[in-house]
Amino acid sequence: MPKTSKRTANTPSSPIRRLVPFAEAAKKKGTEVFHLNIGQPDIETPKIGVKALQEADLGVIAYSHSAGTASYRNKLVEFYSRYAIDINSEEMIVTNGGSEALLFAILACTDAGDEIIVPEPFYANYNGFAKSLDVNIVPITAHIETGFALPPIDAFEAKISAKTKAILICNPSNPTGYMYSVEELEQLKSIVQRHDLYLIADEVYRDFCYEGQQHTSILAIDGMEEYAVMIDSISKRYSACGARLGLVVSKNKAMMAEAMKLAQARLSPSTLAQILGEGLIDTPRSYFEEVTKEYDLRRKTVINRLQAMEGVVCPNPLGAFYTFVQFPVDNSDKFCQWLLEEFSHNGKTVMMAPGTGFYDTEGLGRQEARIAYVLNTNALNEAMDCLEAALKVYPGVVKKQTKAINV
Amino acid sequence: MPKTSKRTANTPSSPIRRLVPFAEAAKKKGTEVFHLNIGQPDIETPKIGVKALQEADLGVIAYSHSAGTASYRNKLVEFYSRYAIDINSEEMIVTNGGSEALLFAILACTDAGDEIIVPEPFYANYNGFAKSLDVNIVPITAHIETGFALPPIDAFEAKISAKTKAILICNPSNPTGYMYSVEELEQLKSIVQRHDLYLIADEVYRDFCYEGQQHTSILAIDGMEEYAVMIDSISKRYSACGARLGLVVSKNKAMMAEAMKLAQARLSPSTLAQILGEGLIDTPRSYFEEVTKEYDLRRKTVINRLQAMEGVVCPNPLGAFYTFVQFPVDNSDKFCQWLLEEFSHNGKTVMMAPGTGFYDTEGLGRQEARIAYVLNTNALNEAMDCLEAALKVYPGVVKKQTKAINV
Repeated sequence: MPKTSKRTANTPSSPIRRLVPFAEAAKKKGTEVFHLNIGQPDIETPKIGVKALQEADLGVIAYSHSAGTASYRNKLVEFYSRYAIDINSEEMIVTNGGSEALLFAILACTDAGDEIIVPEPFYANYNGFAKSLDVNIVPITAHIETGFALPPIDAFEAKISAKTKAILICNPSNPTGYMYSVEELEQLKSIVQRHDLYLIADEVYRDFCYEGQQHTSILAIDGMEEYAVMIDSISKRYSACGARLGLVVSKNKAMMAEAMKLAQARLSPSTLAQILGEGLIDTPRSYFEEVTKEYDLRRKTVINRLQAMEGVVCPNPLGAFYTFVQFPVDNSDKFCQWLLEEFSHNGKTVMMAPGTGFYDTEGLGRQEARIAYVLNTNALNEAMDCLEAALKVYPGVVKKQTKAINV
Repeated sequence: MPKTSKRTANTPSSPIRRLVPFAEAAKKKGTEVFHLNIGQPDIETPKIGVKALQEADLGVIAYSHSAGTASYRNKLVEFYSRYAIDINSEEMIVTNGGSEALLFAILACTDAGDEIIVPEPFYANYNGFAKSLDVNIVPITAHIETGFALPPIDAFEAKISAKTKAILICNPSNPTGYMYSVEELEQLKSIVQRHDLYLIADEVYRDFCYEGQQHTSILAIDGMEEYAVMIDSISKRYSACGARLGLVVSKNKAMMAEAMKLAQARLSPSTLAQILGEGLIDTPRSYFEEVTKEYDLRRKTVINRLQAMEGVVCPNPLGAFYTFVQFPVDNSDKFCQWLLEEFSHNGKTVMMAPGTGFYDTEGLGRQEARIAYVLNTNALNEAMDCLEAALKVYPGVVKKQTKAINV
């Protein structure tokens, strides 16, 4: 039998999906499972976009331009100006999901054996992409005590080598909900300028900011033109994850010319998704106000409940729709599995994403888990009831915490 | 400024797109351009699929399963049985276009520095994918005298090394329209079995066969189970290129498990495209009969006209909707550019894809060009009028042909 490749052998399986069979078994037994494990919102995709697609004349569903249709890209120029992001339609390539945008960015910026520095905990799939493309992720640990703020510059400097080609951040962060300040972005700028690195920023959660916070894109920072590569997607913004419509943006012409070769090789992004996306740009501002209000309510519900549980450490995330939580347990992989396999509270239980999957450093995240607050507050309260009850009976509860500072 | 990667530097630009600025300039001058350069059919996407999408309840456009929705995959099982292809829903991963299917196949089957053997001329983007993933394509030249039939087994044996991981074919072929016989597929089987290689077959033109020919899938050949990786797409079958809905199929469980990690890293294929694709499976048989009849008419029109032109060598392709033609010219890159820049006939001209872009061997294809017969017969006849007139006035016409056997 022919052998499979070393690069896919080195590619980790999605850690989030490992528990899926246990969730399925729980449901078979009749237990209701609250899915706090994935970032699939329950919010409706705005009708204005769906209508544009469903009323479009789809006589021949033809290829679009490899960089995306002119009409969609032109509309995006106006869209980004609302966020003080000044880009033109030549500085963007429309992609099949944010995933493809990241694929293009990694291929254009790195060779096999190169390294990308990523603050951890980080979105697990970054490792999947990097490893399959023979790129090593070099983690720099952020800590729950600071709410997962940017680690100090020294920590970056210590890890930069000749192999380092880029720093990759997610802002606001999946999985921590942390939002980088302008000062932190300026610090990153000084590093990438000094070492001639790309700064790749996954900004797909840009629209979800709380407590009056304002998100700053790396594209809005002066002096970043040659270094900044921004990844975007409509998945979270409009609750349209299944549309697979993303974007890679950079003012670095050489980098975009390389990415364009990849875009041409795969011919075209989805014509259907672009019609939807173009329609969605007309979504009224009130939609975001309502959605953010709803998420903020969910955020507060989850944070308040978690912070009230004995031994639980939960920072106060100001962006995205995740929180990364420390539990007083022996092992959160075991705890999350136990919740599905052995526990129920009034016939219900909770599915979370164990923390270890978000760290590259072996041994970290063993008491942590990511919670996506993508359900309504009633469901979230019930889920929190389950967690509270679970922590009273889980056999692996530990009394002494390694860290216990709420921020 | 940070450097771009060597791998994308080595990735060729799409040769088909090089002429686009010249076509745009011609149109600006008021010249009508017949686009025989790309495989974008003018045939309507069947209404039954469009209706399924446009009437679907798209409340939340959510991620699907990473391998594709269960309902679409189950329907595909029935669909492929119509072609004597016996596969189950676990043996397939739905992808964002055939392009992503090829990406998964290459990553799962090869490491950086490995080689894939491909009969040339071949679909130019194979080189784009391979180079960007640090894989070298090793070409084996097929010849116009045999209508681009499979080169002899000896030619393959001579090129196989420890680095060879796969043979990649396109059947029926883009760009030649050649369709491999069962005997040729059996020959390929004997090679891949003997050398433990994957046989990757791009079968996206399966439905376009003429003169009573029957296409045979590599999945329908006994003994191929561990070796065969089939790439498919709805782009050509239903004239839905912009939907970006493909499929990678293999009975090799290890290979598919690796591909599944990649599928999970990018989360999901398009939910919209899958609704369309599921609807399209109900396209009545009469649609294909009509479409094939139409393409056959176009094929005959183009072939007859080309074969009647002095010094032109045009085989008789029995599949897909391309023909790969030799012209009595000094250089077909120049000729194709000249057609757009300097020539017009009754205010009209022709755009073709120069042959060099389909060969990996330097120097081959300099008198050849690919013609896609994706326009109606009136337009095709007018395009042939242009070509005929052009060959009478093109300054680089050569009288003596290197090859001149019509097959």
